[in-house]
This record gives sequence, structure tokens and C-alpha cells, in this order.
Amino acid sequence: MSLLTEFKQIHLTKVEAEMRQFLRQQTTDETLLKSMLYSVDAGGKRLRPLLLLATMAGFNQKITLGAYQTAAALEMIHTYSLIHDDLPAMDNDELRRGIPTNHIKFGAGMATLAGDGLLTEAFHLLSRAELSTELRLLLLQNLAKASGTVGMVAGQAADVQGEGKLLSLEEMAFVHQRKTGALFTFALTAGGLLAEQEESVVDLLQTLAQHLGLAFQIRDDLLDVTATKDELGKNVGHDATLNKSTYPALLGVAKSSQLLAAELAATKDCLKTLQMTSLVKPELLMSLIEELTLEVQA
Amino acid sequence: MSLLTEFKQIHLTKVEAEMRQFLRQQTTDETLLKSMLYSVDAGGKRLRPLLLLATMAGFNQKITLGAYQTAAALEMIHTYSLIHDDLPAMDNDELRRGIPTNHIKFGAGMATLAGDGLLTEAFHLLSRAELSTELRLLLLQNLAKASGTVGMVAGQAADVQGEGKLLSLEEMAFVHQRKTGALFTFALTAGGLLAEQEESVVDLLQTLAQHLGLAFQIRDDLLDVTATKDELGKNVGHDATLNKSTYPALLGVAKSSQLLAAELAATKDCLKTLQMTSLVKPELLMSLIEELTLEVQA
Repeated sequence: MSLLTEFKQIHLTKVEAEMRQFLRQQTTDETLLKSMLYSVDAGGKRLRPLLLLATMAGFNQKITLGAYQTAAALEMIHTYSLIHDDLPAMDNDELRRGIPTNHIKFGAGMATLAGDGLLTEAFHLLSRAELSTELRLLLLQNLAKASGTVGMVAGQAADVQGEGKLLSLEEMAFVHQRKTGALFTFALTAGGLLAEQEESVVDLLQTLAQHLGLAFQIRDDLLDVTATKDELGKNVGHDATLNKSTYPALLGVAKSSQLLAAELAATKDCLKTLQMTSLVKPELLMSLIEELTLEVQA
Repeated sequence: MSLLTEFKQIHLTKVEAEMRQFLRQQTTDETLLKSMLYSVDAGGKRLRPLLLLATMAGFNQKITLGAYQTAAALEMIHTYSLIHDDLPAMDNDELRRGIPTNHIKFGAGMATLAGDGLLTEAFHLLSRAELSTELRLLLLQNLAKASGTVGMVAGQAADVQGEGKLLSLEEMAFVHQRKTGALFTFALTAGGLLAEQEESVVDLLQTLAQHLGLAFQIRDDLLDVTATKDELGKNVGHDATLNKSTYPALLGVAKSSQLLAAELAATKDCLKTLQMTSLVKPELLMSLIEELTLEVQA
């Protein structure tokens, strides 16, 4: 078994358990709980919690309960954003991760509330995490900033307004740095903060995250063009239907692939620089980055 | 000028300034900012911030910047809940406070994001408030609990599922304790915590808030039946259209008014008990409670 596969098996189970346990404990309404757990349990790659935990492990730190709770809060934020993004009022997607989207299953009203619930309980969980009061507050501020109106919500807002418009490469990078990059940045920097790293190291993690986030988004755009519905677990060609600006639409598939390769190279450069600091075990992070590359080539 | 009117003029301006300033500072997307400020500026009675600040003042405490920020966060949570509650997927309301609802003005996608943004930035603002780290975290935990899936979101979920069903009086109280009562409870208890009151006093504030929340909801139901669209600034008779269980529908107008009077009496009893503790200036809270009664009689 690869190092990464083993890492996933050991640690993601605990992140998932934290999410489920907290939501069960904090939710009185059964349908609301079902609706939230439906999307939480729909799985996905858990890329953001993995990035957080792999970063922490890279600094040779034992992963604590507080880290699992931070990773769980992060994944709850990501999950809420998918539920709201899929709503008829937004992207109007009917399929995600191979199963019907939340609003198809529970109705748009309940799906809206499931998103609101996950968002609120993410901050609730983090505010109660097993961490020093200072670190809890710092992580809370960072998560709110990453997921809020200079971060993810701003990206979503630009995305909604960008439908039917042809964005420039810069405008598209702006959207993606917020829509995807912000939570990636939180994942990496939170991993550094949980490992008690100094500011210069956390700054390097942030730069790495920005390249990785962009790479991830180009990859996502490419898959929407090149993959099949079965491979992806969601409807493909959806971006084109919504007339969204994507990298393949703007640059073509070949140039987009080149840009992806360049961003991945920049990511790996950052990782090398970080190895000259206290990041003594970069293997997991490297495997995660490799996994991204492989998926697109396959 | 009455004591309450003067109090509103002095303090609500500061709460509103905190909301606007923080949102402007934390929002890059102009349309998103416009959409959030549209609902923030639509005003309303600011009952929750008023309750918080009047409680603090009742303990003869000077109102601090941290208190204004807490009150601002609370009003942002309330505002987000109204935007989402009005959405086509939820109550499908087109008019609130005399003007078109957020989604009528900005579209359902942007309105969903404006709600998500206000919700996230409320916790962001509170996480940065000028308060000790301990008090910030305690208030954050309380606000998340009050607005989350044992609180307001649970009430909304029960409300969505209750459409078309005739609820019992107990079931209706359950919904309202969450939908309205939870944020009222936060307002009163936060006022106590900001005034550094001991647990027994905060518990009394909680009991007062529960009676007041129920009174407020009965009043709201009554107004939907008895007031005109112009008086209310929103479409009336809407509950009946949605086939919602309301106090007038279940008990009739006369019995509902009696129940309202009973809850208000219980509220005043709590206030009297609190005057035997450190609540030395109950006048503002009393005026606020009186205002509620007057509006229904008018």
C-alpha cells in the first residue's frame, strides 16, 4: 500500500467521524440531519482535509484531535458550498459524485438550509475545537476570510456574473483564486499553523497553495471537456452549456494542459523550497500533487 | 424624546456603521456588496441588537466597541436568514420592509450568495471583535448554537416541513423557540455576558428571552392576519396562502391575543426578578417590551 493510501485510510476516517458526530450531536431535525449527512457522506476525494493533514504531517507533527476538527470544519464549508452551488438558482446541477444532488433528493428549500446548517456548524465545531484559545481564534479568522466575501463567496459571485461572458485569463484567475484557491490556501496554511510554523514558512505554504489551486481548477475545466460522465460522476460538458469561461474554451485543450503543467511545476518548486525549512517529510504532499497530474493524463 | 428613542439614535447608528464598514472592508465583488448592503440597509426594527445593547445597559455598563460588533454580527445573522427565508425555494416572498426582496432585486443566485456572505462575515466580525479571546470564543459558540442546527436553522427546517400540515400548539412552540427564540436568547444572554454577569443571572435572561420570543412570534402571526400591507411593509395573509400553522389559525385571534398577553406578562415577571439582581436599570428593556404590546393593539 502506498504511503498516501495508508495515510488516507488512517486519517480521513477520523475527519469523517468528527463531521458526523458533531452534526448528529448538534442537529434536532431529522430531515435536516439526513440532508446534511447525505452530502457529507457522498464523499469525494476529501482533498482539502488531506492537504491540511499532509502538511501538518510534513512538519513531522503528530496529528491531534484539534487538527481533525479543523479539517472537518474545512470539509463542512466545502460541502455546503457544493450544495448551494448545485441549486437551481445557481448552477442547477442534478448529479454530483455519481448520485443526485442534494436539492434533487431533498428539495431546494431543505438543500438551502442544509448548506446554511453546514456553514454555521463548521464555525461552531472550530470554535469548540481542542486547541488553545489563540489558535482556535486565528484558524477561525482564517477560515472565515477564506470562505467569505473576499474568498470563496466572492469567487462564486464572480462566477454567477461571468455566465455568458467571455472572461480574460486574468479575470478567470481572479475567480479561481477565490472559488477554489482560497480553501486550498486555508488547508495548507492551517496545516502550518497547527504545526506551529513561523510566518515565513506559512507564507511559502500560501504560495504553494495558490499554484496548486489554479492547477486544480485548470484540471477540473479540462476534465469537464475530456472525461466521460461515468468517469466523473457528474454531468460533463456542463460548463459549455452554461456558457462559462473555462481554460479549454479560452486557450484550447493543448495550451490549457501546458498551463496546468506549468502550475504543477511551480507547486513542486515551492515544495522544494519548503524542504529547505522545517518541512522534513514532503512525500505525502508530493504524492497528492502527483495524483492530480495522473488523473488528467489518464 | 423618550429614553428608548434616544438610546436607538445613539447606539443603532454605531451598530449599523460596524456592519457596513466590515462588509465594505471584506468584500471585493461590487454586486455582492450591493446585494448584502441592500438587505442590511433595508432596516427593520433592529430588535435583536437593541435587546442586546439594552440588556448590557440595564446592568449599568458602558457599551463598548466589542458590544457593537457583537450586535452587528447578530443583526447580520438575522439579515441573512431573512434573505434565504424569502427565496423562491423557501417562502417565495416578493416584498419585505416595503421594498422588493433581495432575490427580486438581484436574482436568486446572488441572493443565496449574499446570505452566505452575511452568515460567514458575521462569524468573521465576531472572531475579530474587540473582546478578550475567552469572551469572543464564548459569544461565538453561543451565536453558532443559536443560529445553527439546534437553533434557527432547525426552526426553519421544521417550518419548511410544516407547510400544509396542521401543527399542534406544542409543535408550533418548538418551531418558534428555534426560529425566533434562539436569536432573542442570544441577544439577551450576550448582553449579560458582555456585562460580565454570573451564570444565574444569564439563566434568568434566557428565560425572559424565551417568553419574549414566543410573544414576538404570536404578535407576528397576528399582524399577518390583522394588519394591512402598507402597515407591515410586506404582503399580508401570506401564512394562510402557504397553509402554515399559525397561532390565529390554531386558536383564533382572540385566544392568540390572550396567549400573547400571558407571554408578555411572563416576560415582565422575569424582568422584575432580574431587578432583584444586578439589573439596576430595567427601563429600556421594559420600554422595548411595551413597544411590542402597543404595536399589536394599534
